[in-house]
Amino acid sequence: MKRALLATLTVAVLLTAGTSVRAMPVGAITSVVLAQADEGSAPAEAPGVVEATVEETEVAVIPGDLDLTYAIDNLLLFLCAVLVIFMQAGFSLVEAGLNSSKNTVNILFKNAMDFCLGVLIFYFLGYALMYPQGSGHEGGYFGFGPKNFEEVSAPTEGGTLNPQVDFLFQAAFCATAATIVSGAVAGRMKFAGYLIYTAIITGFVYPVSGYWKWGLGWLDAMGFHDFAGSIVVHAVGGFAGLAGAIALGPRIGRFTSEGKPVPWPGHNLPFVSLGVFILLIGWYGFNPGSQLAFAGTENTDAVMLIALNTTLAACAGGAVGMALSWLLFRKPDLTLALNGILAGLVGITANCDCVTNVESVIIGAVAGAVCIGAVMLLDKLKIDDPVGAFPVHGACGLWGGIATGIFGAEKDLKVQLIGSAAIIAWAFITMAIVFFTLKAIGLLRVPPEEEIEGLDMVEHGMSAYGTDPK
Amino acid sequence: MKRALLATLTVAVLLTAGTSVRAMPVGAITSVVLAQADEGSAPAEAPGVVEATVEETEVAVIPGDLDLTYAIDNLLLFLCAVLVIFMQAGFSLVEAGLNSSKNTVNILFKNAMDFCLGVLIFYFLGYALMYPQGSGHEGGYFGFGPKNFEEVSAPTEGGTLNPQVDFLFQAAFCATAATIVSGAVAGRMKFAGYLIYTAIITGFVYPVSGYWKWGLGWLDAMGFHDFAGSIVVHAVGGFAGLAGAIALGPRIGRFTSEGKPVPWPGHNLPFVSLGVFILLIGWYGFNPGSQLAFAGTENTDAVMLIALNTTLAACAGGAVGMALSWLLFRKPDLTLALNGILAGLVGITANCDCVTNVESVIIGAVAGAVCIGAVMLLDKLKIDDPVGAFPVHGACGLWGGIATGIFGAEKDLKVQLIGSAAIIAWAFITMAIVFFTLKAIGLLRVPPEEEIEGLDMVEHGMSAYGTDPK
Amino acid sequence: MKRALLATLTVAVLLTAGTSVRAMPVGAITSVVLAQADEGSAPAEAPGVVEATVEETEVAVIPGDLDLTYAIDNLLLFLCAVLVIFMQAGFSLVEAGLNSSKNTVNILFKNAMDFCLGVLIFYFLGYALMYPQGSGHEGGYFGFGPKNFEEVSAPTEGGTLNPQVDFLFQAAFCATAATIVSGAVAGRMKFAGYLIYTAIITGFVYPVSGYWKWGLGWLDAMGFHDFAGSIVVHAVGGFAGLAGAIALGPRIGRFTSEGKPVPWPGHNLPFVSLGVFILLIGWYGFNPGSQLAFAGTENTDAVMLIALNTTLAACAGGAVGMALSWLLFRKPDLTLALNGILAGLVGITANCDCVTNVESVIIGAVAGAVCIGAVMLLDKLKIDDPVGAFPVHGACGLWGGIATGIFGAEKDLKVQLIGSAAIIAWAFITMAIVFFTLKAIGLLRVPPEEEIEGLDMVEHGMSAYGTDPK
Repeated sequence: MKRALLATLTVAVLLTAGTSVRAMPVGAITSVVLAQADEGSAPAEAPGVVEATVEETEVAVIPGDLDLTYAIDNLLLFLCAVLVIFMQAGFSLVEAGLNSSKNTVNILFKNAMDFCLGVLIFYFLGYALMYPQGSGHEGGYFGFGPKNFEEVSAPTEGGTLNPQVDFLFQAAFCATAATIVSGAVAGRMKFAGYLIYTAIITGFVYPVSGYWKWGLGWLDAMGFHDFAGSIVVHAVGGFAGLAGAIALGPRIGRFTSEGKPVPWPGHNLPFVSLGVFILLIGWYGFNPGSQLAFAGTENTDAVMLIALNTTLAACAGGAVGMALSWLLFRKPDLTLALNGILAGLVGITANCDCVTNVESVIIGAVAGAVCIGAVMLLDKLKIDDPVGAFPVHGACGLWGGIATGIFGAEKDLKVQLIGSAAIIAWAFITMAIVFFTLKAIGLLRVPPEEEIEGLDMVEHGMSAYGTDPK
Repeated sequence: MKRALLATLTVAVLLTAGTSVRAMPVGAITSVVLAQADEGSAPAEAPGVVEATVEETEVAVIPGDLDLTYAIDNLLLFLCAVLVIFMQAGFSLVEAGLNSSKNTVNILFKNAMDFCLGVLIFYFLGYALMYPQGSGHEGGYFGFGPKNFEEVSAPTEGGTLNPQVDFLFQAAFCATAATIVSGAVAGRMKFAGYLIYTAIITGFVYPVSGYWKWGLGWLDAMGFHDFAGSIVVHAVGGFAGLAGAIALGPRIGRFTSEGKPVPWPGHNLPFVSLGVFILLIGWYGFNPGSQLAFAGTENTDAVMLIALNTTLAACAGGAVGMALSWLLFRKPDLTLALNGILAGLVGITANCDCVTNVESVIIGAVAGAVCIGAVMLLDKLKIDDPVGAFPVHGACGLWGGIATGIFGAEKDLKVQLIGSAAIIAWAFITMAIVFFTLKAIGLLRVPPEEEIEGLDMVEHGMSAYGTDPK
Repeated sequence: MKRALLATLTVAVLLTAGTSVRAMPVGAITSVVLAQADEGSAPAEAPGVVEATVEETEVAVIPGDLDLTYAIDNLLLFLCAVLVIFMQAGFSLVEAGLNSSKNTVNILFKNAMDFCLGVLIFYFLGYALMYPQGSGHEGGYFGFGPKNFEEVSAPTEGGTLNPQVDFLFQAAFCATAATIVSGAVAGRMKFAGYLIYTAIITGFVYPVSGYWKWGLGWLDAMGFHDFAGSIVVHAVGGFAGLAGAIALGPRIGRFTSEGKPVPWPGHNLPFVSLGVFILLIGWYGFNPGSQLAFAGTENTDAVMLIALNTTLAACAGGAVGMALSWLLFRKPDLTLALNGILAGLVGITANCDCVTNVESVIIGAVAGAVCIGAVMLLDKLKIDDPVGAFPVHGACGLWGGIATGIFGAEKDLKVQLIGSAAIIAWAFITMAIVFFTLKAIGLLRVPPEEEIEGLDMVEHGMSAYGTDPK
């Protein structure tokens, strides 16, 4: 009877566990049961128990806890990747709307190619540079690990990611970093030169500094914290854009002969507003998705904190952008308010996981002010950044990295400053080399008459707003 | 042997439960087992069992059923909140597109600030007014309960919500109610006055009537049913907008000197169409998300019914808007068809959980007709509501509240009428006081010459469709 | 003691199973336990065990594995349905942007009605034609099975779908097939005639050929593979559009009197770009959602492979569209690059589940070239397809069906050719009959003077870009 009862027990237990059996190595759970059984008096029953186990696993087709954890973690990351990819549309609209109508096709095209070429290049090259896992490069400055995207991951623990979706999520981040620059160089940069830039940032510059932190390189080893990429993504894009804007020089007519800035209005502010809302929505994939695991109470709670912190910072940034522009320029300025929303989002990106709600409001509010300050600084320096890519992503990205050191629980301000400075210097210097090289070989800027005519007709032979043939 | 066997049993059972152990108070599950064991003959074994339990919980790192339920419930609510927040972009586009190009910046700005200021005010004030849980205000008219958003909720049962995401979802609803009004007052209301309005509706008016129903106040105690807010959100916004439109009076030229309505075409109908599709998408967060729990067969099934009912009502509303405009005005009218889609959505919002698919088609179809009727009524009353905010959200919100009493399983029509009337009266009267007070102190309407020039240049010094500097 | 111990065991087991008990028929799990118990020596205890079971089910409120599987499968399908529905906005924008401003209202209206009427007609008629399950029509050419959408599905196994969300997902596909055509017939087709077309394709043509494959008809029995509808959805829409374009003839002025094509620029390329990004986002519901089950490691892994394959094909299609247009026409063409993205998406739709990442890049790249080839072919044949609906959805849909036979693991090229040809012939021939019948009764094309004035004013009495009344 003893034997029969134990067999019954084991079978029933395994049945109730569903296909935890399928996900977990069968041996593991059985051996635990046996180990416990050994403490009792039934070691002789072992073979019989094992037999029953094997038989029953064929019956069990319902996913168990481990399978469900795997499903939740990966499906949510997939949805977050979709939201981040949607950000490409947001960038397109913001940048097109803030520029002249005669350069719209060019801007839309550059953004689309940032995604198309960026993902392909990151697949074949960049990802292996950024995540050289298991290749012994932990803690280093540069690594390369061949990655088999086709391998299927057996979920051996919670938070296990399928490599396909892990790549998709990271590739969307890479394309984001690349596309930030298109705004700063709008209205005067050659299309061919831009494609070269895109290939270099997605295939080399972004992956290398990304590896320093997220690929477990030297900055990660040092304790640098950048949860979702204020520095790794946004400051890289923002400072690369600054390098491009400096190399290119301002658009013709952007500064008077005395050096006074001439306001250059966007040609379609509804596009800008829609673009900012799409970016806001996309950020709910960017920040919460960076938790990379969603099941388990701690993960779920972290994601919720991140989501609300992200929201509060965006709102505070927008409110400060509105209020400060009103104070400074006597009228509430829509583009500064919308850029304030983005500024708040960029500022909270590094630290949304380790600050409180109220701190998020503060971080976002300061970001809104930092953004306006940087806009004024660029004007003073006669640097022409048509969409405010540097103020939003560069300056507020840096603010995000620093704010992590000020507000982040158990984060070290000194380490944050070192890490932020290192990545920013890397991005700025390497991209300056790229842009000045393009300039030297005549691939950077279109001739003045083409700039005045507009890049759409000159480079693409079409207008964004065509009229019927006669 | 008895003792060893029982220990084995308990350990195995706990192991198979995975980290249900982690989520559930360990004591609870153990005590159940022990309670049952007591019925047997092994009370003396209790201490030994407990020891084994504590040891094993350290091994178990896989989330269990309770953790997974918590993950699903909260992650889905988060995604629904994102969809509802996306509705802000839809409102912006619909309202901007249906108005003059000279007021576009102003409309976009008001909508953006409804979100930015609305979320912040609701965080610091409105939420505590609307959900004064545990403060003894159940069933009352007014309550205030301090809310600790930072507290982390241990998932003690299915449907447990993390307070961060619960707030985020509710804040998105609050911003929706606020932003509905911006359409009704478009083209003539001062920006500063609008910000005051926004602060009052998100900080006081919406939370108070919201508390009556969703905060478990007197209307909830009475049995009033408004599943996702036909009344609580949409009718509040729609009737507040009506109060604003009446206080402001019509735009110059909207009615002839004989009182005949002059059609005032929208300046960009692709924006309107896109906006309506974004609102439709957002409604899949608004209605299904209002189930507030997603795991468990009953919840899942409820969400699916809600989603399809919402779809069918939208489609029926759009079809009727198209057909009826064709019949009445001899040509199929796009804006009435698109507003018909929104009308159907508003009408089904209160009752999508308690009617059948076919009833949803009927409710949506009637809403499409109610909307057109209300448009014609406003014209007759010489009330100028540039986007049809009252017909869509006010009239069809009321229809949704009534339809719940007609079609809703086990819902009382009389209670529905009382509840709808009470909330509508509250919103209309309080907001009328606000708007007429703003009028009295000169903060409501811009001067005629400014209205003719357009709010964009006058209030913000910029055009939505700028041209290059010369 | 034996009896007490067994009762304890059963209770504990049921407790650990959580509300698997609630989801699963209680009898089932109990009988398994009893069956096992029979092997032991305690048959007499059965009644007591059952009693305990019934009592404990009242305590168990936490969803179990089966409930959670059901939640994940259905909630994800719901989210995917939302993404697919969002594609309607994408189609609207692409088609409106690529056409003249004078036909914008008409295009937006047709797209909106494809959704509104399409979903209603598919609910009351088409779905029963396409999925005549349990009516003995498996493997046939035509079937009709009454479907009770209201029935609630008890999750008896993983992958069980709630019929409400199953319908919603399929209805979104049906509306997609319908709306593809609106692009090909833009600028000259009567609104009333279009509504008749919509009713026929959503109520009859699409459901019948859809049944051949997805309703388990003869093509499914033959082994034809079309994972998410390169043929079933896109080629049906694309070839129906071709039939429409042929029946209508080209727009006035589209070809010179010598038969040379006159380029007809779109009136708003930002709309086109945004529309393509929205379609890309929607495709993450279209393809991954077609797995129809998400929980369980195999399903989750399949969804991730599908998502990345879809992305890579889109990127490759866009890159080839850009590069090839540059080579062929000396300037990189934005609309061909954007259509290349869509071409890659259509091409990968049939086979995203059964090809590798690198094969996806190849399939997408070829699709980008096929699309440009088909554009040039239509020009040569003097067929006017204003948005490239046939090149993108028809030609690349066919390519997707063929590519499945070339690259798809264990797929038969011959069967793929037969299946693709059969569905394409069905769609083309039936829709040609419809369009030529509409032509015969004068419901197809507007008179020349109305075409020149534009469909917006003639058919709807409004412009998409209205100006203020004087």
